[in-house]
Amino acid sequence: MSRLQILRKQTGHFLEDFVPGQLYRHKLGKTVTEGLFAAFTEFAMSTNPLSKNARYARAFGFDGLVCPPGLAMLVAFSQTVEDVSENARANLEYVDMRFGAPVYVGDTIEVETRVLGVRTSASRPNLGIVHVQSTARKNLGEPGEAIVLTWQRKVQVYKNDEAAETHAGEIAPDAVDCPLWLPPHQPGRDYKRLAHLSNADTYFEDFEPGTRIEHSRGRTMTSEHIALTAMLDNTSQVHCNQFMIDQDPAQYVGGQLIIFGGIPFVLCLGLSCPDIADNALGDLVYKTGRHTAPLFAGDTVFAATEILGKRELPGRPDLGVVETRLFGHKFVRKEAGSFEKVQIFELDRDVVVKRRSHYL
Amino acid sequence: MSRLQILRKQTGHFLEDFVPGQLYRHKLGKTVTEGLFAAFTEFAMSTNPLSKNARYARAFGFDGLVCPPGLAMLVAFSQTVEDVSENARANLEYVDMRFGAPVYVGDTIEVETRVLGVRTSASRPNLGIVHVQSTARKNLGEPGEAIVLTWQRKVQVYKNDEAAETHAGEIAPDAVDCPLWLPPHQPGRDYKRLAHLSNADTYFEDFEPGTRIEHSRGRTMTSEHIALTAMLDNTSQVHCNQFMIDQDPAQYVGGQLIIFGGIPFVLCLGLSCPDIADNALGDLVYKTGRHTAPLFAGDTVFAATEILGKRELPGRPDLGVVETRLFGHKFVRKEAGSFEKVQIFELDRDVVVKRRSHYL
Amino acid sequence: MSRLQILRKQTGHFLEDFVPGQLYRHKLGKTVTEGLFAAFTEFAMSTNPLSKNARYARAFGFDGLVCPPGLAMLVAFSQTVEDVSENARANLEYVDMRFGAPVYVGDTIEVETRVLGVRTSASRPNLGIVHVQSTARKNLGEPGEAIVLTWQRKVQVYKNDEAAETHAGEIAPDAVDCPLWLPPHQPGRDYKRLAHLSNADTYFEDFEPGTRIEHSRGRTMTSEHIALTAMLDNTSQVHCNQFMIDQDPAQYVGGQLIIFGGIPFVLCLGLSCPDIADNALGDLVYKTGRHTAPLFAGDTVFAATEILGKRELPGRPDLGVVETRLFGHKFVRKEAGSFEKVQIFELDRDVVVKRRSHYL
Repeated sequence: MSRLQILRKQTGHFLEDFVPGQLYRHKLGKTVTEGLFAAFTEFAMSTNPLSKNARYARAFGFDGLVCPPGLAMLVAFSQTVEDVSENARANLEYVDMRFGAPVYVGDTIEVETRVLGVRTSASRPNLGIVHVQSTARKNLGEPGEAIVLTWQRKVQVYKNDEAAETHAGEIAPDAVDCPLWLPPHQPGRDYKRLAHLSNADTYFEDFEPGTRIEHSRGRTMTSEHIALTAMLDNTSQVHCNQFMIDQDPAQYVGGQLIIFGGIPFVLCLGLSCPDIADNALGDLVYKTGRHTAPLFAGDTVFAATEILGKRELPGRPDLGVVETRLFGHKFVRKEAGSFEKVQIFELDRDVVVKRRSHYL
Repeated sequence: MSRLQILRKQTGHFLEDFVPGQLYRHKLGKTVTEGLFAAFTEFAMSTNPLSKNARYARAFGFDGLVCPPGLAMLVAFSQTVEDVSENARANLEYVDMRFGAPVYVGDTIEVETRVLGVRTSASRPNLGIVHVQSTARKNLGEPGEAIVLTWQRKVQVYKNDEAAETHAGEIAPDAVDCPLWLPPHQPGRDYKRLAHLSNADTYFEDFEPGTRIEHSRGRTMTSEHIALTAMLDNTSQVHCNQFMIDQDPAQYVGGQLIIFGGIPFVLCLGLSCPDIADNALGDLVYKTGRHTAPLFAGDTVFAATEILGKRELPGRPDLGVVETRLFGHKFVRKEAGSFEKVQIFELDRDVVVKRRSHYL
Repeated sequence: MSRLQILRKQTGHFLEDFVPGQLYRHKLGKTVTEGLFAAFTEFAMSTNPLSKNARYARAFGFDGLVCPPGLAMLVAFSQTVEDVSENARANLEYVDMRFGAPVYVGDTIEVETRVLGVRTSASRPNLGIVHVQSTARKNLGEPGEAIVLTWQRKVQVYKNDEAAETHAGEIAPDAVDCPLWLPPHQPGRDYKRLAHLSNADTYFEDFEPGTRIEHSRGRTMTSEHIALTAMLDNTSQVHCNQFMIDQDPAQYVGGQLIIFGGIPFVLCLGLSCPDIADNALGDLVYKTGRHTAPLFAGDTVFAATEILGKRELPGRPDLGVVETRLFGHKFVRKEAGSFEKVQIFELDRDVVVKRRSHYL
């Protein structure tokens, strides 16, 4: 055979590729299997019985086991990685992440992303910030079609060619109608006989603004993160390609594989679950959130939640909204026997919680 | 915001919390998904085709793939951990563990535990022994409701406050009716045409009391145990919180995460399966069992079974009961090239096995 | 009890056990669960939406999510390990591996193997080569019964007793009718509205014989391989028994657990997927393939594909066959900062790919 022509395909987009207003319809889509459901509901130590006990979930008016909000987020978010952030340096901020229809095993999630803004960096000419809005729908073209999640994020993206012109600009976000679906309260149902399946002290009435709950459990991450990230179809190489890092360790934080941010995101939700969301019927909105330090295999993750406020949920006297700020942290070893606490994650999170008055 | 009030919730119970006669209805419950089923049936190298091959399982009269007894045990047992043993020093003994209805994918298991006894330690005032009886039911309030497992165990539990009074005492166990469900033998069925799917030398007639079978395969455990334990909703921190251990390594055996006892329990069952249970239709009872040494990531587990005796199964001439003692062991490296064999587990186990006369 | 009689059962067969013409009907069989499906489709970073998105798969005429060819191969192949290669030194070659019916979640796969040839080694009297032909069927005795895979392989197998006579000889392979099932092209269907879910540059028209595509992603393997291999019921001890290796490290390549060859096989297929098989409807045949170096936990796997040729698929103007050679490689660290590229795998692979003219 004559000399072969070598092809190397570009994956993902670079700063100069993004144009405000442009819409990406992402590849693949993903059907939620029981394998995916089990791996992600459980690794994060989530405890809401809606995601554990089908009998409980059906009694509350859901069709069956409900994907925890963190899993819905991971499935949707990961589909945007190749187009939006495969060539990113960092995910800067999550903005206005709102949940809609519940996600069940068997649902197929597909996602599209609109580019809202592109901004170059004055100080670092090879970098800029891309602002996008993504929306995830389930079961397109089928009777159960519904929006399950919409969110914005800001990402720091590399340029491929430093000299290339960028499409700087910013447009307004689309108005995406994504109301949280909640099962109706049915006074005839004997909710009380299921009450022992969730924690007794996490009803709406139990939360006190001005308190901070240090969640009692920690969870050590291992190299399992590589498989978990692959299971989400997240293709970013900084999470799974150790050889790339070994060739130029100084280029990468810590000289090792960094854990995909979605993992600590969901793990913090899970660690906070027994104290915050055991009696939640859904997560309403994550107003803003960010990763503040990287996470590596071997780190143990802890979480804490501050109760910022409480409010009524219009039309639903049986429920209320608890306004929280979720924090994740880890400890970094200094000299012998000494550890420094490092915050890794922060999320402003409004949770819809049952009232004791109606369910107990 | 004004200064926050910090809350740290207690999880689990301490010695002084237990009262003989008291009943815990455990939280969560758990629906068996195909994800859970695959992870646990397979990691343990179990080989009975009832748990591998749905065609085979249906031909023998089951509804579909059957959870191996070890998986039914893990799902049920783990639900009792938070209430009974999250603050335990050690699980001392399993007693009279009896299996009932088979567990299938889709079944929801819920568990309750009665406190049978509380005893303080004369020599160690911060410790005592709690004796409990737990019962696991499936599909509560639905047509297929049934008891799937009942067992007792004795646990060494810490006191929270050394000065607190304990509720010493002991009551008799409840009589729990938990008969092993077995599919009927149907002479018209052509069982023989499926015989090649299980081992040919593990029928009732093949077992000789007075023999010890050294099972040929070993399996090295990795840090996968953290995820497996989380997948069971087992919340004990000694299995998953490395930071807790790093702060005070001398306090913990080996200064490392200890593998949840349910893992070697099930792994020993699996390693013994090709020689003992390939032609079993169910496990009848584990009369007594205990962990005799801890297991850590990196250890390779082996198993052996002594055949203690054989007996008829009343009303079932096609089956027989093989009385066995299952042992687990590992090897600990001493000087260069030298290893010490350490027993880690022991279980008295009665298995219901097909007779060659009726199935081959 | 009197002194126990110790039994150690032999597992697997040795060179002297194989007889040309003999048929093994393998044990177990395996029903594909959503747990198995998720673990294997995802770890390999496969990207064809037929295996990710049930809506897409149904629109193309499949019954639901389709097992990637690599998973069908792993499930079938692993069933042959105990009988054929548990006591093998090396798997020398895959030959004429042809795919038939698609494999779905819920299908039960059972496999049988005919011994085609036995040959002793002139230079190494304790070794020889066994040539076998295996065929995997699904849903035996049920309406959907079909052949899903047939293949030959050559394995280097140890003798148990060097003095034993072997059954040297060779017979012709059976003619196994295993046509690749392909969904019909239905001109009325609006395939185009799904086109964004797969890559736009991997239609039949896009492939140029004489090119080599270096696939852009790498994937680092971890000790996860032990659990993955167990999940396949592959019982070979060199993949999971570290103690066996620690006792005599010089006897084993690298003195560590070797990763089951099926893992890099499938991983290379997955890494090549976005460039080669994103618009494939099936893999037709793997004419020949082999492992050229071992893989260990910690290695990062890369893949490349050479386009050898293209041809028509008789009767299907909407499709074409792309003839490829798939390569896997890793990098081995030499002195500081220097790495050597080592080829680990090679597979001649004919893929059935959609034509842009009919689907876009």
